[in-house]
Amino acid sequence: MRHLLDFSGWDRARVAALFKTARAMKEVLSRPIKTVPTLKGRTVATVFFEPSTRTKTSFELAAKRLSADVVSFSGSSSSLKKGESIRDTLLTLAAYGVDAFVIRADAAGVPHQAARWLDAAVINAGDGRRAHPTQALLDAFTLEEALGDLEGRKIAIVGDILHSRVARSNAELLGLLGAEVWLAGPPPLLPRRPFFGARLTARLEEALKDADAVMALRIQKERLSGGRLPSEEDYRDGYQITEDRLALAKPGAPLLHPGPLNRDVEIEGTLADGPRSLVLRQVENGQAVRMAVLYHLLARRAA
Amino acid sequence: MRHLLDFSGWDRARVAALFKTARAMKEVLSRPIKTVPTLKGRTVATVFFEPSTRTKTSFELAAKRLSADVVSFSGSSSSLKKGESIRDTLLTLAAYGVDAFVIRADAAGVPHQAARWLDAAVINAGDGRRAHPTQALLDAFTLEEALGDLEGRKIAIVGDILHSRVARSNAELLGLLGAEVWLAGPPPLLPRRPFFGARLTARLEEALKDADAVMALRIQKERLSGGRLPSEEDYRDGYQITEDRLALAKPGAPLLHPGPLNRDVEIEGTLADGPRSLVLRQVENGQAVRMAVLYHLLARRAA
Amino acid sequence: MRHLLDFSGWDRARVAALFKTARAMKEVLSRPIKTVPTLKGRTVATVFFEPSTRTKTSFELAAKRLSADVVSFSGSSSSLKKGESIRDTLLTLAAYGVDAFVIRADAAGVPHQAARWLDAAVINAGDGRRAHPTQALLDAFTLEEALGDLEGRKIAIVGDILHSRVARSNAELLGLLGAEVWLAGPPPLLPRRPFFGARLTARLEEALKDADAVMALRIQKERLSGGRLPSEEDYRDGYQITEDRLALAKPGAPLLHPGPLNRDVEIEGTLADGPRSLVLRQVENGQAVRMAVLYHLLARRAA
Repeated sequence: MRHLLDFSGWDRARVAALFKTARAMKEVLSRPIKTVPTLKGRTVATVFFEPSTRTKTSFELAAKRLSADVVSFSGSSSSLKKGESIRDTLLTLAAYGVDAFVIRADAAGVPHQAARWLDAAVINAGDGRRAHPTQALLDAFTLEEALGDLEGRKIAIVGDILHSRVARSNAELLGLLGAEVWLAGPPPLLPRRPFFGARLTARLEEALKDADAVMALRIQKERLSGGRLPSEEDYRDGYQITEDRLALAKPGAPLLHPGPLNRDVEIEGTLADGPRSLVLRQVENGQAVRMAVLYHLLARRAA
Repeated sequence: MRHLLDFSGWDRARVAALFKTARAMKEVLSRPIKTVPTLKGRTVATVFFEPSTRTKTSFELAAKRLSADVVSFSGSSSSLKKGESIRDTLLTLAAYGVDAFVIRADAAGVPHQAARWLDAAVINAGDGRRAHPTQALLDAFTLEEALGDLEGRKIAIVGDILHSRVARSNAELLGLLGAEVWLAGPPPLLPRRPFFGARLTARLEEALKDADAVMALRIQKERLSGGRLPSEEDYRDGYQITEDRLALAKPGAPLLHPGPLNRDVEIEGTLADGPRSLVLRQVENGQAVRMAVLYHLLARRAA
Repeated sequence: MRHLLDFSGWDRARVAALFKTARAMKEVLSRPIKTVPTLKGRTVATVFFEPSTRTKTSFELAAKRLSADVVSFSGSSSSLKKGESIRDTLLTLAAYGVDAFVIRADAAGVPHQAARWLDAAVINAGDGRRAHPTQALLDAFTLEEALGDLEGRKIAIVGDILHSRVARSNAELLGLLGAEVWLAGPPPLLPRRPFFGARLTARLEEALKDADAVMALRIQKERLSGGRLPSEEDYRDGYQITEDRLALAKPGAPLLHPGPLNRDVEIEGTLADGPRSLVLRQVENGQAVRMAVLYHLLARRAA
């Protein structure tokens, strides 16, 4: 594995190998001293052309726990009008000796371009509506912890499917792992065609029925503005995950959310803090999974 | 000690033990190599819901000198409208494996709430007008260096007492250490009742007379706007610490200020740079005291 | 060497000694593990009163690769209206135990003042139009790599000479190394008198003719606003470095630019990415040179 852009070219063996490393990293994180010298002297750059606190912090802390040096670059793509200047920025950072680039961009495809420009490893930390592979990996890792093998499991993903790179990457990875993925949301927030073999429905009940797990997506409030789009109230009425609705899923089916949560919008508040919520487990696993990704990309590279 | 929120539950023995550690840390800071491995692999998060450069830098450098990893989160409480979402932010950081949270908030009580939500140690880095315990600890440490035992010493604190968490925490801690604390300021900037046994006066001379030490507080210029409030000129006329006024205190009585100074407002410029000013000593001691606080909270915790 | 402010007091032996260290640092940077423990426990502060991403990142990464701790302060000089408060900021940082200050300011002379106020080492990272010595050092280092000894070499520097601290510092250092420096640009962007023995011309061809190397400076687009000043189009027509114009220089003469590039303004796009461009080499060498500067200022200081 030279880069992590999306899951094309992946098979189940690669996922299993990565998750094995992630379990080892999780053991490291359970120790009082959570740092290992594995990537000492290596440099990881986080390059975020779109603001993010959580993903950036998760990656930077993952890199530090492996003893890597971290350098950060934040810019808005508006100030970087031309593709060439994103390239100049990346090549400049590369000239500082950066070994891995963690890139987020509001335009799809930027990490893929970066991988062509750079010798260093590139990790896609979210590009437009296209992909967010480390989120999907941490979700699948968390689901496997809860459910075991995902083959044949029904996973319902609920919310703004149309604009969601999380939905796309989850559909791609969970499909690869043999799960049956259902994507549910209000019609204006559904894509015209399903992707990666997932099933598409506007009927929440159909997606939740006998689901082994339910994942609610974050809603961008500016996408709930009435008119053709549902209002926030409509969204709650039709798609909020409540106790009653979750009862349609299998008994004890866990509930996931990539965060940050809009409390009492995507999920009923009490559920979010309840025993079936894996939201904080996802955060914790995210760090172990990102440490594993950095390890697979850097530690095994010819030094 | 599980958290440092304020001084309730503290006794002189605990202060003495902390100051003993702070003296050891100060010795470390006098070395050319100022780093010790004490907290290697531990993670300290600075979470500032109110901007601050100095306190944040002081804590982050204290953590780094103890070889801890540091992660920072800055947010305005305006973007965090509901208590739940401050809680979500903190629980998310906790899921990254943070061992100690250094929290500043413009709303009083946030660090106390955090201590209920989190298993990790919580350090109050200033909450509203309520408390700023590490500032009081560094002030008391600096006063003890200059004066020895504080029992029976008269300490004058001058300025905007009403809005000052520094005044409150100093009154609490210095009172505990047996000092006689006088709080002086213009009537609209005095609280209605004294706190923690300190004496309250609008007559600066009464507070300064035979004082063993004088502490001027930082004035928020927006609080000097005329009307019911004094103008900046009125403030200088009535409450600026000048050579002449300082002559009322005991000979050689030192002068403190928590910084940053509004030059020639709270203190006459020449005094601020003179031999009786301990302003830079306070900054230096602040780092040793914060290292000691981190050490007491983390190094002794069951690993 | 106690500070690096400009090149007054420097001789060729000092440059040679620094470049010898920089070559050793470059060897460190070629290793997979790019960190050495040389400055462990030392603290470097970057204090930027003017925004900059590249220079700041370059210095911070240089410090980290030497295992120093880094503390950053960014402020606008507008919020720091009085000289005293820049001084207070620096003295406060010094009280944290900072060993070296890397200072950038839009007002000329701030680093020189800082060197008078502080016991710590001061590195000028650019002050007004006055000096930017580490940029000149990395440029000269890169030129020596390409050309060998610079004695008698003709170096053409092209662009907005009037406002450029890069031009001034390069003229000073390259002059010291025996090079013949030509400064070319549109008349409104030329200073009235040449500096440091360099020759001044508005005729680009005169500067480029038989040059051993060509350096294009970054143009601030707000300086190309028409009127007395040239428009962007005028600038391109008259001073852009193109294939044809570069043919006036010696065969294979390399092309430098301090970055960031305004693509197709200062340099024809294809040239910027071509084999004669040393732009990325400059970035890479910048890190080695800054590591060498930190080493000469700190590692040899009495500990």
